[in-house]
Amino acid sequence: VNLEVFDVSLPLFEGMAVYEGDPQFRLKRTSSVEEDGVCLSEASLSLHAGTHVDAPAHYLADGRSIDELPPIVGRAKVLDLSSVKSEITGEDLRGCGLRKGDVALFKTSNSQLLGLKTFSHGFVSLSLGGAEYLVSREVKAAGIDYFSIESFHSERKPVHKLLLGAGIPIIEGLDLRKISPGVYSIFCLPLPIRGAEAAPARCILVR
Amino acid sequence: VNLEVFDVSLPLFEGMAVYEGDPQFRLKRTSSVEEDGVCLSEASLSLHAGTHVDAPAHYLADGRSIDELPPIVGRAKVLDLSSVKSEITGEDLRGCGLRKGDVALFKTSNSQLLGLKTFSHGFVSLSLGGAEYLVSREVKAAGIDYFSIESFHSERKPVHKLLLGAGIPIIEGLDLRKISPGVYSIFCLPLPIRGAEAAPARCILVR
Repeated sequence: VNLEVFDVSLPLFEGMAVYEGDPQFRLKRTSSVEEDGVCLSEASLSLHAGTHVDAPAHYLADGRSIDELPPIVGRAKVLDLSSVKSEITGEDLRGCGLRKGDVALFKTSNSQLLGLKTFSHGFVSLSLGGAEYLVSREVKAAGIDYFSIESFHSERKPVHKLLLGAGIPIIEGLDLRKISPGVYSIFCLPLPIRGAEAAPARCILVR
Repeated sequence: VNLEVFDVSLPLFEGMAVYEGDPQFRLKRTSSVEEDGVCLSEASLSLHAGTHVDAPAHYLADGRSIDELPPIVGRAKVLDLSSVKSEITGEDLRGCGLRKGDVALFKTSNSQLLGLKTFSHGFVSLSLGGAEYLVSREVKAAGIDYFSIESFHSERKPVHKLLLGAGIPIIEGLDLRKISPGVYSIFCLPLPIRGAEAAPARCILVR
């Protein structure tokens, strides 16, 4: 079998853009090959840094934590939503061929923001109607190419609550810049941090 | 396709066992659903906490860092080495049917140590002869069911240096307790931390 593997994860590094208000990613080298014969490092980070998965516990008091979810493995559909200006609606998603159990990945104009050094407020997000459509389709997970799937200006975060309440984990911070829309197998593996509301993940698409 | 997915990653939590000398895993909740309407957390950890992958930069001054390695995807062979008392030798590995490009995973009596709250010095490790055999077989990666593949008492760490020098990443801290020896597909995905000598990983076996 000759599988093509596409890495759709953002690199983690000091100075990377993070969601407004989140702490910076930090990496501390505590010993080096040159001086100590071995390189050792420690990291400190928000669980929402870079490519990450939100679990129901992010917004729901009794919601499942990230270690209680199965790894996100299955059929992924990368949708071309590059023409959406502000919010992805149910209308935008209808006719995209999403099936029950699919992982829906939104490739939007956000991809242009990923190269920036700072967080941008004006990213394309999912509307509540779009979230309702995903719940009705019974997708396995939903992912987007920026640090949140929901508008920065949303106060009560109904999109997160609806998706997570329906048991649909949210993959945020995907790098889909090199990915052609279409069908792939996805392996999105967040760190199994016990009791955590989210975790950074490495995510690949395969076909 | 009905794939069976086996998670072989250790959970990350405060109080988990870590390699002697490494800092404890820490998780800090900075806001909660009950009080703030949203749960947010930060983690700080050694890059060698739990299930993780060592890159060449761990021991080699000009070695590749974890973000420079491709995700570890391919054919994995879980070897039953439960009868090995101290060191896995080349003799132990010969006749195991390892092929070029395989990911060799060692299931040993170490699995009994994984439930303990503290680090144990006396784990089963790979001998230099065993490492030489893996290099000669041109395996893609090597993994073991404890926090190091090399004896705690090895001073110059020749096993790490030989494997990493040959471009063979090392997967440490695998939980193989529920895994029957045999052939699987592996997806071992470390966080892409830029310039880092290692990274925590989520690792699954599929068949």
